[in-house]
Amino acid sequence: MFQTSILVRFGDLDAAGIAYYPNLVNFLHEAFEDFFVGHVGRPYPEAFKEGLGCPTVKVEMEFLSPVRYGDHVDIDVIVERVGRTSVQIRYEGAVGGRPVFKARNTMVVVDMASFRPTPVPVWLRERLEAAMEPAGGR
Amino acid sequence: MFQTSILVRFGDLDAAGIAYYPNLVNFLHEAFEDFFVGHVGRPYPEAFKEGLGCPTVKVEMEFLSPVRYGDHVDIDVIVERVGRTSVQIRYEGAVGGRPVFKARNTMVVVDMASFRPTPVPVWLRERLEAAMEPAGGR
Amino acid sequence: MFQTSILVRFGDLDAAGIAYYPNLVNFLHEAFEDFFVGHVGRPYPEAFKEGLGCPTVKVEMEFLSPVRYGDHVDIDVIVERVGRTSVQIRYEGAVGGRPVFKARNTMVVVDMASFRPTPVPVWLRERLEAAMEPAGGR
Amino acid sequence: MFQTSILVRFGDLDAAGIAYYPNLVNFLHEAFEDFFVGHVGRPYPEAFKEGLGCPTVKVEMEFLSPVRYGDHVDIDVIVERVGRTSVQIRYEGAVGGRPVFKARNTMVVVDMASFRPTPVPVWLRERLEAAMEPAGGR
Repeated sequence: MFQTSILVRFGDLDAAGIAYYPNLVNFLHEAFEDFFVGHVGRPYPEAFKEGLGCPTVKVEMEFLSPVRYGDHVDIDVIVERVGRTSVQIRYEGAVGGRPVFKARNTMVVVDMASFRPTPVPVWLRERLEAAMEPAGGR
Repeated sequence: MFQTSILVRFGDLDAAGIAYYPNLVNFLHEAFEDFFVGHVGRPYPEAFKEGLGCPTVKVEMEFLSPVRYGDHVDIDVIVERVGRTSVQIRYEGAVGGRPVFKARNTMVVVDMASFRPTPVPVWLRERLEAAMEPAGGR
Repeated sequence: MFQTSILVRFGDLDAAGIAYYPNLVNFLHEAFEDFFVGHVGRPYPEAFKEGLGCPTVKVEMEFLSPVRYGDHVDIDVIVERVGRTSVQIRYEGAVGGRPVFKARNTMVVVDMASFRPTPVPVWLRERLEAAMEPAGGR
Repeated sequence: MFQTSILVRFGDLDAAGIAYYPNLVNFLHEAFEDFFVGHVGRPYPEAFKEGLGCPTVKVEMEFLSPVRYGDHVDIDVIVERVGRTSVQIRYEGAVGGRPVFKARNTMVVVDMASFRPTPVPVWLRERLEAAMEPAGGR
């Protein structure tokens, strides 16, 4: 498991003064990028420039409580499954301990030159597996 | 069922030249707004100004095929369930007949003054139910 | 001159319930895309795919009056100058006749393969010049 | 003068793989928010909730060099003028010392209840003036 924190900006808000939910979906990608820097040990932009892409093929997200301007959303990043060419990650967001969202995102690893699925590279697989919960976890 | 079409703009794209998936999540809300104008018979902004809010509590979305710059995404809006204070809608997107996404969104109807759930107003319930599939539908 | 109209969506709003100004900057690009379809006679996405890019090098924009949810913003697109490799366009936005913004945008035409300036193609120059105001215009 | 640094995220990019310019306009607001926390000594969201709004009435921005994925944009925030109800701020962005943009933004201070201009509060005026360049500055 890895944790990061993302600040809610003015541009994330909607007319109700809370975070607009597609912008919270964007937070998942930002948490994924932070996970690369903080856990994988390599910025995702660098891997992306070398041809590694991770398009999302499925996302499920529940919004449990409103997220407001200036909130710091603490996001747990938990790898649930590493397949041959796909990765499933769970994200749990909280503000000051209050759960605000939980999400599950499935990505396919692609070679950006062809945009076709490619096996998860070994260096990435190892780090992804290290972020999986131990058997018997919640 | 109701159908609308949304044009993919430059600002919707990512560095891979395809629509960035949180922007496609935003398309669901745009389709919902078009559904109000074209099917409910009343612009959502008007209802919103009078205090009706519809925050999303859950979204599930599958991305079936890339969506590209300049694509017109045809979106079917199918009401699946109208509860006392909630509404579940299915969205199916296609480009030139090729399915590109399918999604299910659950919203809660709230009174914007209190941001608390409130029963779906009668005028809205009637129009929502008219957009449900007949029993025996797919 | 060319005119288009862009609808203000929920995702364009800020916490004050009016359009967030960077989203109105995005409207300039959307108006530029509509100008291609409606005046140049060729979708910009098509030209973009063939390697024509138009990055903005300068923008100036004044916000004259609030833009609200559900507003249709009528945007005049007036070409002010066509240089060898650059184009300057003025945009004037109004809602129901009330001016809401005016802007001036300078773009450089680039070859996307090298991202270096390239002369404005003849087919485009002709159509741009046709959208200039006559001498003696306002 | 105050300086902050903003990371370029995947969602900021366009199809050319560089930051889409309206997203860089959004960076100005983010830098303004960081200026509140780091220099004014009070989060802007807090002031906003208490009724202080700062809508932009004019922005001018020049894009000097491409901003890429993963770049940390260092942004100088220089207050140029504090009027009775308005504030003019200059922003200068650089990546690793290479200038990427410069901008000037004029905001009007409003009372959010009425959305009408209101004098810049004393506590804010003092901190704004402390971020002005000394006479004889560049």
